[in-house]
Amino acid sequence: MRAPTPVSPVFDYRARLVRAGEALVAAGHASLLVSHLPNLRYLSGLEATAGLGLLTADGRLWLLVDPRYEAAAAERADDVGHDCLTPVPTAGVRVAEWIAGRCVGDGLGSLVLESRVLSLHDARQLEQALGRAGWAGTLIDSPLDLVEGLRRVKDADELACLREGGARLSEVARGVLADRVASIGRTELEVAADIDHRIRAVGFSKPAFDTIVASGPRSAFPHARPTARRLEAGDVVVLDFGGVYGGYCVDLTRTVCLGQPSPDVDRQYRAVLEAHQAGCSAVRPGSTPAQVDGAAREVLVAAGLGEAFGHGTGHGLGLEVHEAPRLAKPRPDDATQPPLEAGVVCTIEPGAYVTGRAGIRIEDDVEVTGTGHQRITDVPLGWPTAQ
Amino acid sequence: MRAPTPVSPVFDYRARLVRAGEALVAAGHASLLVSHLPNLRYLSGLEATAGLGLLTADGRLWLLVDPRYEAAAAERADDVGHDCLTPVPTAGVRVAEWIAGRCVGDGLGSLVLESRVLSLHDARQLEQALGRAGWAGTLIDSPLDLVEGLRRVKDADELACLREGGARLSEVARGVLADRVASIGRTELEVAADIDHRIRAVGFSKPAFDTIVASGPRSAFPHARPTARRLEAGDVVVLDFGGVYGGYCVDLTRTVCLGQPSPDVDRQYRAVLEAHQAGCSAVRPGSTPAQVDGAAREVLVAAGLGEAFGHGTGHGLGLEVHEAPRLAKPRPDDATQPPLEAGVVCTIEPGAYVTGRAGIRIEDDVEVTGTGHQRITDVPLGWPTAQ
Repeated sequence: MRAPTPVSPVFDYRARLVRAGEALVAAGHASLLVSHLPNLRYLSGLEATAGLGLLTADGRLWLLVDPRYEAAAAERADDVGHDCLTPVPTAGVRVAEWIAGRCVGDGLGSLVLESRVLSLHDARQLEQALGRAGWAGTLIDSPLDLVEGLRRVKDADELACLREGGARLSEVARGVLADRVASIGRTELEVAADIDHRIRAVGFSKPAFDTIVASGPRSAFPHARPTARRLEAGDVVVLDFGGVYGGYCVDLTRTVCLGQPSPDVDRQYRAVLEAHQAGCSAVRPGSTPAQVDGAAREVLVAAGLGEAFGHGTGHGLGLEVHEAPRLAKPRPDDATQPPLEAGVVCTIEPGAYVTGRAGIRIEDDVEVTGTGHQRITDVPLGWPTAQ
Repeated sequence: MRAPTPVSPVFDYRARLVRAGEALVAAGHASLLVSHLPNLRYLSGLEATAGLGLLTADGRLWLLVDPRYEAAAAERADDVGHDCLTPVPTAGVRVAEWIAGRCVGDGLGSLVLESRVLSLHDARQLEQALGRAGWAGTLIDSPLDLVEGLRRVKDADELACLREGGARLSEVARGVLADRVASIGRTELEVAADIDHRIRAVGFSKPAFDTIVASGPRSAFPHARPTARRLEAGDVVVLDFGGVYGGYCVDLTRTVCLGQPSPDVDRQYRAVLEAHQAGCSAVRPGSTPAQVDGAAREVLVAAGLGEAFGHGTGHGLGLEVHEAPRLAKPRPDDATQPPLEAGVVCTIEPGAYVTGRAGIRIEDDVEVTGTGHQRITDVPLGWPTAQ
């Protein structure tokens, strides 16, 4: 295996904390309970599977961690600065009481909860603790998505990670196609393991999600898991995989045919490809996420494949493989999303899934630039036939 | 790469739905909203990254899925039986309204929420929808952990997966030690990638979590992520990795020394090993989780390493790599856990982490049998020195 290249991007966490504090002030709130771990990582650099943050409007973060992450949290404070990041070990501490004590002691007038992530149980515990502590402030459960909003537009260091990730994932994809990794007789699981190995070999710290290898009739399941099914002549195979580079996720899909596609499947491929190009072309500052989705969707509707395109056209990429913006038909409960702007990075991945025939998806990653967009993945787009 | 062996265990989902319905009846409730995805998978077999279930006391499950999982949900209904599993596509549907409509239409007297998982936002939406629908029943947010309780004790099919997984993970571990995968000059990331490749090569569908390779001073971080640090002579290296086999997670840790350990490090290793053996010996039907933790902990306390053992002694294994029981010092907010019984499978993984010296952890997986326990991982326990 080629030695993975060391990756230690340096992010400006102090600047992020300042911006998050300013966003709190702008929203008229005194503090935010950070429950979503990617948000906590964005603000502090802490990579953990558990933890909480209490952010105040002056841009100060209290980082609550259990004993597993005490040393890592101390390291983060040394790096970011003890004046704005304070580790709080929670061993033997009732977390809700600690937060309530802080709210009362610091006279915080309001506390915003990340209500899409915070569990009902933890919210109840906190409400009760605040009541017992006699806190007079206001608890705000809000789909405000304050930190997600900051994360939506990437800074220069994040863009560097994403572009480098896109280049490396493209290298993996070109190799997968050239080496005919998806070939007759191999199982979906074997193909997935091979792809994952290549992802690690080019320097990703890990796959960004469970690699999808969906062959033959299974290609019509948009999110199929790889199985022990052996690839057969004539199969259409959807290959969807991603990698994490410097903490940032990139994501790519190509669909191959093991032999000569039927005229129906060929038409289906060309329609998805046209939708993919229409989606990419619609990505520019000022476009709304719904407009980008609509541009790809209308191509498939016109091809009689509207019903076969059951998911959205794309999603934002960053510390999470699915984050804002959501490029899809607005759902009944959706909040309005802001238009795209320079620094947003997202996937464009239309697909068409016809049960009993084939599923096809084509996905690239694009960055919104000052004037339009730039693809950060680069893999040939024609029908890649292989065997 | 050796071809991964196909794994398609057959689980009796009908029996699980019946048991879950009976558990609802025993608790005096009419229905349960299943939000925790491993619970949904346990009851239906659906592997999805999103979805909800409404379980009624007659053991019937309504499976709410978005378009990505419609085909998979239909397949699950065909397999489990349409009389007890009904897919509900949610495209264009307000989920909270649908649930409220069902509660009113079926006259359900109560609805239990999985409050440790359900988000505050979704709970609020549901409360409002139930109010609008004029539902007269009772909403119960409960740390009841109804499905988790069923999952705690494994059935014969689950035990077969876990035992096979334990045997395969042991094969990986023996190979990692024999082949000196952790050797001077390699980076932690390279070692982790090598281990992950071996995990796939013996037939696991994927690693059960991000493999930990923590070397030298980093070994003192119990949950360190692999970095570009190169292993050096004299390093202590913690190797903690797991695999998913037939959906079930197994987990193993060995600590190696690249050279001759110092007398202090050697004493530390022997204390952790003794704690590991004391923990394993305490695993039997009737022991409480706290007793097992205490058995391991008192060894380390007696060795002056009580403060250096900041985490719990172990955790249950199953569809999740951390599930019930939790073998640890009871926390202030903990509910009482039932004693161990035959069919529980858990890790025993005491550790001691001394900043500036070394961290050491030794972990095996054990099954509670009718009379005691049986280790399902089997890797030599002595100080494995390597270079």
